Amino acid sequence: MKLASLKGGRDGRLVVVSRDLESCLEVPDIAPTLQAALDDWKTAAPRLKAVAESLDAGTAKGARPFDQAAAASPLPRAYQFVDGSAYLYHVELVRKARGAEMPEGLKTDPLMYQGLSDSFIGPRDDILVASEDYGIDFESEVAVITGDVPMGIDARAARAHIRLVMLINDVSLRGLIPGELGKGFGFLHGKPASAFSPVAVTPDALGPAWDGGKLSLPLVSTLNGAEFGHPDAGEDLAFDFGALIAHAAKTRALSAGTIVGSGTVSNRREGVGSSCLAEKRMIETIEQGKPSTPFMRFGDRIRIEMRDEAGASIFGAIDQTVVRYEG
Amino acid sequence: MKLASLKGGRDGRLVVVSRDLESCLEVPDIAPTLQAALDDWKTAAPRLKAVAESLDAGTAKGARPFDQAAAASPLPRAYQFVDGSAYLYHVELVRKARGAEMPEGLKTDPLMYQGLSDSFIGPRDDILVASEDYGIDFESEVAVITGDVPMGIDARAARAHIRLVMLINDVSLRGLIPGELGKGFGFLHGKPASAFSPVAVTPDALGPAWDGGKLSLPLVSTLNGAEFGHPDAGEDLAFDFGALIAHAAKTRALSAGTIVGSGTVSNRREGVGSSCLAEKRMIETIEQGKPSTPFMRFGDRIRIEMRDEAGASIFGAIDQTVVRYEG
Repeated sequence: MKLASLKGGRDGRLVVVSRDLESCLEVPDIAPTLQAALDDWKTAAPRLKAVAESLDAGTAKGARPFDQAAAASPLPRAYQFVDGSAYLYHVELVRKARGAEMPEGLKTDPLMYQGLSDSFIGPRDDILVASEDYGIDFESEVAVITGDVPMGIDARAARAHIRLVMLINDVSLRGLIPGELGKGFGFLHGKPASAFSPVAVTPDALGPAWDGGKLSLPLVSTLNGAEFGHPDAGEDLAFDFGALIAHAAKTRALSAGTIVGSGTVSNRREGVGSSCLAEKRMIETIEQGKPSTPFMRFGDRIRIEMRDEAGASIFGAIDQTVVRYEG
Repeated sequence: MKLASLKGGRDGRLVVVSRDLESCLEVPDIAPTLQAALDDWKTAAPRLKAVAESLDAGTAKGARPFDQAAAASPLPRAYQFVDGSAYLYHVELVRKARGAEMPEGLKTDPLMYQGLSDSFIGPRDDILVASEDYGIDFESEVAVITGDVPMGIDARAARAHIRLVMLINDVSLRGLIPGELGKGFGFLHGKPASAFSPVAVTPDALGPAWDGGKLSLPLVSTLNGAEFGHPDAGEDLAFDFGALIAHAAKTRALSAGTIVGSGTVSNRREGVGSSCLAEKRMIETIEQGKPSTPFMRFGDRIRIEMRDEAGASIFGAIDQTVVRYEG
């Protein structure tokens, strides 16, 4: 089953989307918003699934074309977004880039930060930034939305609480991060609003690429029309989503609608490129003594998408342009 | 005007509370929840204020007694909670306690972290913690709830976006914090769910104690029935709420219902006590070479309250007991 939120109001309007992303149907009688569906998933999910089946069969009454550009992020605002950093090659490169040490216990204790969730950018909306000097970067990631998760759950049991899977562009302001992290309280200015893919997908609709905890397909980032990277999201991750959810829930329950991010997808093998500029710049620094790829400038465009083995877009595409915030 | 959320569902049921905290009235026709009122404040606020006036005049039909123990936190879940650390004496003591250095630029650049907001504890609910070894502490603070705040706002203009004021118990697990902050991504395990006062109050109802950016009254913390501290929330803060909101909004807009915390209230003058155990333990370490006050144990009780100059409770009391999480 695929779900999206058409723009409208603070929470959008929930639609069920066909598997091929071609058509959709509003479902106000089932749940007006995705958060409302997640709050009462046990009741809502079977009814939404029936709509999805009728859409895929071409028998849904009232179906209309699905326009990815009319979609907000699946949860236009959420009660929680925690973002892990499960791909350790990314961690190594980015820490080298800002001269920070590798944390101890990195392979057993995930890195994770509490991110902003009060308002996400739409998947086709501009990324508004006040200054290019902030070091504007994208980060292509996979994320899940959970149901209610009890405190203290283990990684294996946590998998059963994954409701939906989607993609993220975790916008990062590299120039602001070193000073901010130096203060010790984590990210605030350095991680402005993220964008999510137009569509969120239930695990059962991902087929064999989903093993219950991770999604093994290439995540393609395209910068200004040229492919920038296609690392496989199922490779080189130290923690799957079960482990990340369990980490988040160590001292607290997680409420339905919590978004858990994987961190920037990154593979060690050569030739697959990167999922953010900071990595490429660090590789350049290692190889050539200094970075030659600039951070994003106003007008730059980033597209993030994942295709199934038949080449069909699973989540739709994040496709955003960086624009100066005029305030 | 005073507002509260009676327990019920994920978001509670909004009630207007009388100035003396004795009576309340549900207002489903105006807004079913506090978040709904904040989402449409311009329309809802005047109508809620009319109800408040009739409650205070004793003419409200359907009014019933207000039971603080039946209240959830005013926002039982919120889209954002950012917590500052505006009282620098607290920062100095707590950093000394964990052997951390004072950040540079501390007096001009506020410390602030992105806190969890997906589910808050009720003001009279137990604080569930899996182990006393986590170093359980309370932190008594003041907080505001904002309306929509544009990105890049300045401190003076930010004041106009303060909708409500309340108190917090920002529960902290001191034993988990040094390791977590050492990883560089801020608080996750060390800051579980907080609790807020039973009632949130509009700035205009705070009288001369509110100057538009800070609240100048003693904040009283009572531990196991004995007064632990009564520092004045209007003293020794380096940043008022206007400055804290502006800091939070530097690279992002803030959505209606964002909670901004002051950090632990702390005065330099002697004799007023503290608003958390970590401070007292550090003072003991400085004076006696080691701490003699333990962190909270299962069964310990913390009460946090603020009274006006006439001695009346403004926000009602947070009153919580630490209980072992059996999960």
